[in-house]
Amino acid sequence: MRESELHAHIQALTHAMSTDFPRVILGPGDDCALVRTGPQTLLTVDQVVEGRHFSPGTPIDLIARKAVARSISDLAAMACRPLCALATGLLPSGFAHARTLTDRLHHWANHWSCPIVGGDIATASAGSPLSLTVTALGELNENERPITRSGARPGDHVYVTGTLGNSLASGRHLTFEPRVAEALWLRDTLGSDLHAMIDLSDGLGRDAARIARASGVRIELDASALPIHADVPPIPTRWRHALADGEDYELCFTCPRDISGMSPNNTPITRIGAVVASTDRAQPPCLVLAPGGSLVDASEMGWDHA
Amino acid sequence: MRESELHAHIQALTHAMSTDFPRVILGPGDDCALVRTGPQTLLTVDQVVEGRHFSPGTPIDLIARKAVARSISDLAAMACRPLCALATGLLPSGFAHARTLTDRLHHWANHWSCPIVGGDIATASAGSPLSLTVTALGELNENERPITRSGARPGDHVYVTGTLGNSLASGRHLTFEPRVAEALWLRDTLGSDLHAMIDLSDGLGRDAARIARASGVRIELDASALPIHADVPPIPTRWRHALADGEDYELCFTCPRDISGMSPNNTPITRIGAVVASTDRAQPPCLVLAPGGSLVDASEMGWDHA
Repeated sequence: MRESELHAHIQALTHAMSTDFPRVILGPGDDCALVRTGPQTLLTVDQVVEGRHFSPGTPIDLIARKAVARSISDLAAMACRPLCALATGLLPSGFAHARTLTDRLHHWANHWSCPIVGGDIATASAGSPLSLTVTALGELNENERPITRSGARPGDHVYVTGTLGNSLASGRHLTFEPRVAEALWLRDTLGSDLHAMIDLSDGLGRDAARIARASGVRIELDASALPIHADVPPIPTRWRHALADGEDYELCFTCPRDISGMSPNNTPITRIGAVVASTDRAQPPCLVLAPGGSLVDASEMGWDHA
Repeated sequence: MRESELHAHIQALTHAMSTDFPRVILGPGDDCALVRTGPQTLLTVDQVVEGRHFSPGTPIDLIARKAVARSISDLAAMACRPLCALATGLLPSGFAHARTLTDRLHHWANHWSCPIVGGDIATASAGSPLSLTVTALGELNENERPITRSGARPGDHVYVTGTLGNSLASGRHLTFEPRVAEALWLRDTLGSDLHAMIDLSDGLGRDAARIARASGVRIELDASALPIHADVPPIPTRWRHALADGEDYELCFTCPRDISGMSPNNTPITRIGAVVASTDRAQPPCLVLAPGGSLVDASEMGWDHA
């Protein structure tokens, strides 16, 4: 399909957008889209690259799903409501699934109430990896604050949604559900007690350390408390998988209240540690109490994109 | 440089952002950026890919400049004010200029008052093309309308800013100035008479045809009126270069008033044709009156991304 034909197809796809998403005044087809925005807009962009975020041969639907879901998960991490998205595709020359890819990107974006209002398609040489980007916009009302990584305080509990580990090997990294409903429920339920939050993309150890560094605190996790997914293998040790495997896309948050249990959608919420004062900047920002009783540095457990 | 080090560098770069750009509440470093938005936000995303939009060996500064400028040019085409941007980089493994690339992306985004508030970097296999995306946000006040491609009316004159042709061969495609100031001046000067506008990326013929199709009209251009750049070669004919070379990033607009002459920054504004009623849908949407007196279909003159 020529790009001009694909563009016509995209415009047809999004023609019905204005009724389903009245905030979208102009969708794809002009130099820019036009969206009605409120006072506070959240913005994130992520990439999904063949060979890095998905294997060659992964079904197009799951590639599109992951590309959208990763950015929606970033919106969830700030506890904001999805508004709209833009997507790009860099397609290897001869790529035969441009139309399916476009359809599925729109499908998943609509599914998470974040319609794609603009995009761009380019072709690269035949051996290039298929690569997608999704920019997502979310919003907060005037009186709502974003839930950042920097609000954790000594005395907070550390919580995580869902279960952790083995996401890549199991394929869950392609099928996870971004925790938007859980994040909004946490905001409603905890109010100003929801101090800090992050979504777990690189691994609990590394991502919890990001909260600790941004907040100027230390996080101590308890390996025996981690909600480890049932299919995590015992090698090297199951708790290390939960800390280091990455791509869980669960929420990790801190608050001073007891909120263990179930959130909407029956998503478990598990207390996994505590926030303590950081008395020594040379100390690791995230430690884990291992089953043998030793405190282990968890700050580097996860994916570093080195 | 590891990605974590690059992230620290990016955060340092943008630390001063809050004073220069008070609308940016949270810049890079968290799961999302947070920006104060008005009621109408314009959105666009574009890609710049090695081998397609720039040649291997192009200076990093010019690659970054083009990546930002292309998206800013889309904002200009809607006559809106730049607000902020997000950028991604897909870097071939072993790419040694990540820091320079990041610095120059931020430099050019700041230069055009469109600070980069978020981004993502990923690495692909060694032979992959360097690829960037820039998502740009612009804004309009409550009472301002976007200048779309669909507002052209029979009786309008067709105008173009600057000069056309030979952009790729001359290197101007790397150094063009997005016409934001000119677009805002046109909005101020013409008011509701500024009927339709587009920025010329694919070629005047093809892009003018987009205005014609979106507006349900026909555009007739006069080859002898085209402002052809001085360095355009005479082969095949100079006016064909002006219509088909593409990557001019000038503005083409329609309005019923005489506005030929100079706009701010001494940018020429030239009347190049007229909008006429489209009586027959089978007719080409954009014709050009060739020097010999014949009317030639110009709707396919330019780049089709086939």
